Amino acid sequence: MKKSYDTEILSVGTELLLGHVTNTDARDVSEMLSRIGVNVRYHTVVGDNPQRLRDCVEIAKRRADVIITTGGLGPTCDDLTKKILAESFGLKLVRNEKEYEKLYHFSRTTTRHFAESNFAQADLPEGCTVFSNSCGTAPGCAFEAEGKIVVMLPGPPKECRAMFRESAIPYLRRLSDEQIVSHAVHIFGMGESEVDEIFREEMDRMTNPSMAPYAKEADCLVQVTAKAHSEAEGEAMLEPLIAHVRERLGDLVYGVDVESVEEAVFRLLQEKAHTFAAAESCTGGEIAKRFTDIPGASAFFLGGAVTYTNEAKARILGIDPALIEAKGAVSHEVAGEMAERVRALTGADVGLGVTGLAGPGGDGVHEVGTVFVSMAVEGKTWVRELHMGLRRDRSFIRRMAGNVAFDMLRRWLSGLPVTPQLEKFSIQKFD
Amino acid sequence: MKKSYDTEILSVGTELLLGHVTNTDARDVSEMLSRIGVNVRYHTVVGDNPQRLRDCVEIAKRRADVIITTGGLGPTCDDLTKKILAESFGLKLVRNEKEYEKLYHFSRTTTRHFAESNFAQADLPEGCTVFSNSCGTAPGCAFEAEGKIVVMLPGPPKECRAMFRESAIPYLRRLSDEQIVSHAVHIFGMGESEVDEIFREEMDRMTNPSMAPYAKEADCLVQVTAKAHSEAEGEAMLEPLIAHVRERLGDLVYGVDVESVEEAVFRLLQEKAHTFAAAESCTGGEIAKRFTDIPGASAFFLGGAVTYTNEAKARILGIDPALIEAKGAVSHEVAGEMAERVRALTGADVGLGVTGLAGPGGDGVHEVGTVFVSMAVEGKTWVRELHMGLRRDRSFIRRMAGNVAFDMLRRWLSGLPVTPQLEKFSIQKFD
Repeated sequence: MKKSYDTEILSVGTELLLGHVTNTDARDVSEMLSRIGVNVRYHTVVGDNPQRLRDCVEIAKRRADVIITTGGLGPTCDDLTKKILAESFGLKLVRNEKEYEKLYHFSRTTTRHFAESNFAQADLPEGCTVFSNSCGTAPGCAFEAEGKIVVMLPGPPKECRAMFRESAIPYLRRLSDEQIVSHAVHIFGMGESEVDEIFREEMDRMTNPSMAPYAKEADCLVQVTAKAHSEAEGEAMLEPLIAHVRERLGDLVYGVDVESVEEAVFRLLQEKAHTFAAAESCTGGEIAKRFTDIPGASAFFLGGAVTYTNEAKARILGIDPALIEAKGAVSHEVAGEMAERVRALTGADVGLGVTGLAGPGGDGVHEVGTVFVSMAVEGKTWVRELHMGLRRDRSFIRRMAGNVAFDMLRRWLSGLPVTPQLEKFSIQKFD
Repeated sequence: MKKSYDTEILSVGTELLLGHVTNTDARDVSEMLSRIGVNVRYHTVVGDNPQRLRDCVEIAKRRADVIITTGGLGPTCDDLTKKILAESFGLKLVRNEKEYEKLYHFSRTTTRHFAESNFAQADLPEGCTVFSNSCGTAPGCAFEAEGKIVVMLPGPPKECRAMFRESAIPYLRRLSDEQIVSHAVHIFGMGESEVDEIFREEMDRMTNPSMAPYAKEADCLVQVTAKAHSEAEGEAMLEPLIAHVRERLGDLVYGVDVESVEEAVFRLLQEKAHTFAAAESCTGGEIAKRFTDIPGASAFFLGGAVTYTNEAKARILGIDPALIEAKGAVSHEVAGEMAERVRALTGADVGLGVTGLAGPGGDGVHEVGTVFVSMAVEGKTWVRELHMGLRRDRSFIRRMAGNVAFDMLRRWLSGLPVTPQLEKFSIQKFD
């Protein structure tokens, strides 16, 4: 795809303008496009109103080369996108037999009421490329007309993401001699600005392949992108670059193209057939909740204890109240005991523990943002002390503490030292 | 504000077009506007590019009466919003002394580096109304020119929300003789479509005050809105309407203007000085995590156990493995034991328990979406069986199971029968 293809994402739905839902489709599509080097110039949201939608399509035609719509492909009379877009480009809607048959089959097997109007989902602009919907019933499509490329995607976020990845990306790539190959190198233990500093000079010199750091919440990544004549060529260009990032950042790299540090942990646990358990105080279930958001988590996560109070630490985990009295609930001694005891209690290979102050209230002893994160395996326990500073909020502190715990587990499962070479957030160690 | 004020939200920031962040500002502002009866017609997102931003402002001037910008008020050279908007309306930027002094004071007290360019944040369009930033340094503003109303808000979501609520809403209200008063009546145990059915006829007849049901994830609300000459008059118009909704829906109403069912539970626990604990299987920490997201949760949540495996149910909670063997981990007997045992273990007033299948994998016995939710108090235990159907995903099933658990607790704390009069999601009871 030539560099100058300006793209507009046009999302259709009154529910977006009422603030009932967030426009995650535009974010998801933008993220995937930026990873393959396509420039998104505008997002527009308009309601289910024919005239206003028509006007927005006219504006998009004037200022963009590629128009990607999200939403409005369903069967209700509110769903206008196909009708207005086809009209605007002088195309008829014609019934697609294959999609009609799929809908017919669905109508025979569903237990829900299937209104006749649902079959309108099979009506698509004449001559378009049909995108089947792997997660729902409404197909999407793409066509070229008047020198513009139009791609239509369904509104439900899962369907939108899946169709974009499965059908729209291959379609958009087909338009160009160039293949764009891109990977995300995920980093934990160093912020975006530090990563930027390390690679700034090189990045400024690079044109193809290129690299750029991106911040995520309590986490960051380096996106590497190559434009090539084939995927293999692109991969060959990126391989030394990824190796270079890995070499420079060492074991702070937790994976390539992996969703999150808990996802990296999930894969390692699968590989090594290990199990873990967690005892959480200030994170209050953050570790358990995030890990069990992953389908299949139950095979590796044996259980956890949320021990918010001193009594719970004593009663559920069996920690000696005298130790809590002597050292305080927010201490490396109690953190260590939490990891060891939850491990023993569940019979897991690894125990994780977190105790600290997520705020906004303090305990009169520690600063808000002081958190001890621990890990216990057979015969060894580690505790790390974090100070996240007063400017961080409760949600960040909890998320970061969870990330540190998952990262310690990731490092141990990978045979790395549990403590990274580089530190952020004034992390002190008690190895 | 007269009814026909069309509003456009113009969000500025390349990070939005790259998909690094989601445009939650447009959602938040839209939601607050729709609650006071203002019509949002368009959302636009444009990057930090002067010409494209200028073009977007021209389009917004043609099609909207009110232009609300978010983002681009900070001190870096990327932050263009004030400059371009002022230019477009022929206004100069002038230094605001009060905001300058605030920045100066901040620069003297912060431990971070404070660049000279930061003072540009105090430069605002001549004659504007200044909106102080209660959560950050960049002020916002509003002005009227060329028959348009322009409101500028900062990009960071917390700052944007706070400034909109504290300054923009009063500013927008000032423009009109009318006061708009609005409340959200929160409902659990009935879906939006059922609520719509119940009130449809009345709603169609109503003009002022008005009401409308909105869906939330696994939850819903009825927004009631009055236009009046004073706030007191508006409140007086809404009072009988809220009473009517409460009367019609009974104890399905869990609160007015409350964030979530766990927030309602939090308030009740404060009021009654009661404590609770939770034993979670398929929700994997959902209850603990959501409740401890609330600052101050530690006073009422004594702790929890995440007992994903049968072994954890036995080892942490002390449930007899023979019972699990006989009845299955997903059973009302095990659910009941979980609530009772976590209550005994922590010494809490109330124990909650959840066991079920969140999917996507099944257990060969139950359908995915089968969940038992239990609650135990001194001398009594309730278990409810939910069937959420195969079409619901893991995340919905977990969220809904958490909602049901919190709602049972809310009902008990309110002295209501733990089982609601009306059911949804084929809920069966084992009282």
